[in-house]
Amino acid sequence: MMRWQPGSRERLGEAAMELFSEQGYENTTVADIAERAGLTERTFFRYFADKREVLFGGGGELQELIVSAVAQAPAGAGPIDAAAAGVEAGAALLQERRAFARQRQKIIAATPELREREIMKLASIAAALAGALRERGVDDPTATLTAEIAIAVFRIAFERWVAGSERRGFPELIRESLDDLGALTKRPRRERAPASA
Amino acid sequence: MMRWQPGSRERLGEAAMELFSEQGYENTTVADIAERAGLTERTFFRYFADKREVLFGGGGELQELIVSAVAQAPAGAGPIDAAAAGVEAGAALLQERRAFARQRQKIIAATPELREREIMKLASIAAALAGALRERGVDDPTATLTAEIAIAVFRIAFERWVAGSERRGFPELIRESLDDLGALTKRPRRERAPASA
Repeated sequence: MMRWQPGSRERLGEAAMELFSEQGYENTTVADIAERAGLTERTFFRYFADKREVLFGGGGELQELIVSAVAQAPAGAGPIDAAAAGVEAGAALLQERRAFARQRQKIIAATPELREREIMKLASIAAALAGALRERGVDDPTATLTAEIAIAVFRIAFERWVAGSERRGFPELIRESLDDLGALTKRPRRERAPASA
Repeated sequence: MMRWQPGSRERLGEAAMELFSEQGYENTTVADIAERAGLTERTFFRYFADKREVLFGGGGELQELIVSAVAQAPAGAGPIDAAAAGVEAGAALLQERRAFARQRQKIIAATPELREREIMKLASIAAALAGALRERGVDDPTATLTAEIAIAVFRIAFERWVAGSERRGFPELIRESLDDLGALTKRPRRERAPASA
């Protein structure tokens, strides 16, 4: 029987983040991570499928939280408000993990493969969010467009939030961007023949 | 000296698209494509870096066109209108290539690797569009948010346009989505303490 080692997952995760920051993601092996954590590679693979999962393992939880907040938005909420409830719930989750999020962001920014993975992950969350809106009876293309906008708001607020100089909270930055949206997308009508009335 | 063969590029492109459709992208080699076109592999590589470029080679032209239309939008145009001018110009370009676009879309939808590539390509066009908006003096996060919205509109209108049942033109579908945006993002104010005035 395997002995359960309290805190192994945390120790492995922290060791991985340290090493990714110190020597780069690509130059870090699972053997390095296990050694730094004082554990075996076998223990590492009990918790993570590979080293990338240290960085992306939380994505599923984030997606589920967003989808479930969209589902639970009040029945009268319109598409953008239901989507906003979703990304605000996601932001509240990440807000509790700011130090990790900042460290993670630097590692991802430094590695093209990880930047691609991050973009794909967000595209997958956007697709799930669109699905949750359709479940609420929102038709396409509105569901997809709303989901894409909400995820764009989420990503942009996220990038501001992890920036070294930003002191505001992630949910606050999300709300700010959502409030800006209305002004941003208010387009003057195109030139048309003058109305007769 | 190499002899220039009129129409070689077109013949290779058409042969590739036929084979991708018939037997799948992954099962098609450059040798197959050259054989079908009645040309050599060497000739193929004179025009394309690899088989993927048959599908994605037009992305650079599309991006340049979008960026240049944003740059040339009237000085008084706001961010969303400048971005709209960009994606409308892109749509007008693709409108001339509807048969190719439809065939291409089916091939991409069938191949996960190509779907990822397409998402990355659109992310890169969004980044270039945001850059073009910053050149016009639009600050971030507005520039990035506007660019992401415009590319979401572009992608969604594109998917409708290539669908078998859709008869409207791509630029028309873009304008329809842009007009919907304003209504979509008009959010009721949150509950606040009543204003004193």
